[in-house]
Amino acid sequence: MTRVFNFSPGPATLPEPVLRKAAQEMLDWHGSGMSVMEMSHRGKQFISIYDEAQALARELLAVPANYKVLFMQGGAIGENAIVPMNLIGKTGKADYVLTGDWSQRSFKEAQTFGTINIAATGEGDKFRSIPKQSTWKLDPQASYVHICSNETIGGVEYHWTPDTGSVPLVADMSSNLMSRPLDVSKYGLIYAGAQKNMGPSGLTIVIVRDDLLGHALPITPSAFNYQLQAEADSMFNTPPTYAIYIAGLVFNHIKAQGGLAAMQVHNEAKAAVLYDFLDESKFFYNSVAREDRSLMNVPFKLKDESLDEAFLQGAADKGMIQLKGHRISGGMRASIYNAMPIEGVKALVAYMKDFEVRHG
Amino acid sequence: MTRVFNFSPGPATLPEPVLRKAAQEMLDWHGSGMSVMEMSHRGKQFISIYDEAQALARELLAVPANYKVLFMQGGAIGENAIVPMNLIGKTGKADYVLTGDWSQRSFKEAQTFGTINIAATGEGDKFRSIPKQSTWKLDPQASYVHICSNETIGGVEYHWTPDTGSVPLVADMSSNLMSRPLDVSKYGLIYAGAQKNMGPSGLTIVIVRDDLLGHALPITPSAFNYQLQAEADSMFNTPPTYAIYIAGLVFNHIKAQGGLAAMQVHNEAKAAVLYDFLDESKFFYNSVAREDRSLMNVPFKLKDESLDEAFLQGAADKGMIQLKGHRISGGMRASIYNAMPIEGVKALVAYMKDFEVRHG
Repeated sequence: MTRVFNFSPGPATLPEPVLRKAAQEMLDWHGSGMSVMEMSHRGKQFISIYDEAQALARELLAVPANYKVLFMQGGAIGENAIVPMNLIGKTGKADYVLTGDWSQRSFKEAQTFGTINIAATGEGDKFRSIPKQSTWKLDPQASYVHICSNETIGGVEYHWTPDTGSVPLVADMSSNLMSRPLDVSKYGLIYAGAQKNMGPSGLTIVIVRDDLLGHALPITPSAFNYQLQAEADSMFNTPPTYAIYIAGLVFNHIKAQGGLAAMQVHNEAKAAVLYDFLDESKFFYNSVAREDRSLMNVPFKLKDESLDEAFLQGAADKGMIQLKGHRISGGMRASIYNAMPIEGVKALVAYMKDFEVRHG
Repeated sequence: MTRVFNFSPGPATLPEPVLRKAAQEMLDWHGSGMSVMEMSHRGKQFISIYDEAQALARELLAVPANYKVLFMQGGAIGENAIVPMNLIGKTGKADYVLTGDWSQRSFKEAQTFGTINIAATGEGDKFRSIPKQSTWKLDPQASYVHICSNETIGGVEYHWTPDTGSVPLVADMSSNLMSRPLDVSKYGLIYAGAQKNMGPSGLTIVIVRDDLLGHALPITPSAFNYQLQAEADSMFNTPPTYAIYIAGLVFNHIKAQGGLAAMQVHNEAKAAVLYDFLDESKFFYNSVAREDRSLMNVPFKLKDESLDEAFLQGAADKGMIQLKGHRISGGMRASIYNAMPIEGVKALVAYMKDFEVRHG
């Protein structure tokens, strides 16, 4: 068995020890005589798995006591509607900050549910930078301010936390939650699909401050009503049990590696290897403003785009896959989430150097 | 390793060969160097897994060409809102037939989205039978008629297909889809959580006739808009990839066993073992009308309820678990979906006979 270096933007590579444990436990979890997939979500075995995943998520992220951590379904694209359904009822208005494709999609979806103001947009800079907070036009009557903390396609990431005063800050953190320490208390709500740094697709993590519960619009489906899910410990409907189990294994693995502070060191080191090379290369380039570069998703291009296919084929031949950029942006993209080892990034850079010498 | 007989109502027992294959392929699917969990949903490997699951679902259920099969998220409780959001817009009205807890929940949720008529209810008979179609009061102006084809708590199941004329019939088949052959053409829409007969929780199957697409209310979240999902081959948002893979393995297993006709024979034989014993017993009983008894979920009670705990403990000691009835109904319940072997049902009946002798 040869494992590849998988640079997929998500679903994405997972820690090998997690997969080994999942394989070992597949037919018989801890002597229960069952796979986790087969367990009633109301049974004592799954409840213990759920409680551990919940406790580890809270511990790793240092979630304050006045926040709920919900395990839901529908992904970030689902949340693009579920967030306004649950939160916009207070004033009927919300502010959105546009920094690329994902925040634009969030903005479009929210317009169905209220009056949405663009507080700031990076469009004038082709989304190659995050608009400085001094330029934001915030509405003090907004029910919340929405940001996307990391844009997987454009490769921009917030390395600072916006100050929205008494208006709750809502962040789509699908692609960087659990990649570094976080001050949850600065946010009203955080949501994330699990399939980047936390587990399989089909699981959505929602972290919500207690005072934001209970304001859902009447048309909110019960399964997506935060208050009903909070009251039911995420079991208002049957939760995605196996995905929660895998996320728990990933959280345990992160903790054993030293927690989110260790993840940050690891992720900064990996990103530096790649960005340092890109900045020196005459053959490859990245266009994002240095202070806003993503540590998770590194888009880059070849100056000679006619070599794109040869580059991807050569990478695949060396066991490095999913490097093709999103169809919107073209070029290449290396997604280097928590579970990508630094050896993978070093192998990629060695290949890029060699490719440059051979074709330069 | 000793595997238990798991009578859980869902998530439920899965075929052991499926779990063995999933364990074997966990770190390296077909030489790809990746777990299925790690695959981009846009990559060729996962597309092949998706296509096979889709083709097998269509083959097993003989789905006509003018129906889409969607792989979604949110479960049947999510669909309780998603169905009216997508379908009720035509006339603003819908008919619901109440046969127990699940259809009652569907009815309550739908009321948010339009005018809901109770076409028939089994409440007068304490939901121990399915109301005969001759008693149904159908509204020809309804956008659809909703039924629950099998009530997991009460243990009643339709063994006939309602005729709703030109009004589309919508069925929640969470607990009996894939348990027997089905004439899909008699339905406008079928939905089911996967976690009974098809796979892990977190995956929802929706089978929808083409002419019902395109009528969603404006407040329908894009991720739950059937038309958008149909146009995107269920990838408008990232689908629950691993759950789809497991469902595909289950579908393959069903096909190898002889398809849905074989499942029906197998399920009828299992149910007969249990119901025949219950009908003869002076100690245990089932209260459902014979012609409406569920082949999937068999609720039963001890005449002396003070022995309930002893019964459950004795069963657990013999490796038979999750026999406790739902809190709404009390008593016991044996869920005997496709993957429950007849040996499990025979072992349960042998234990029940012995318990009756010892305590009778």
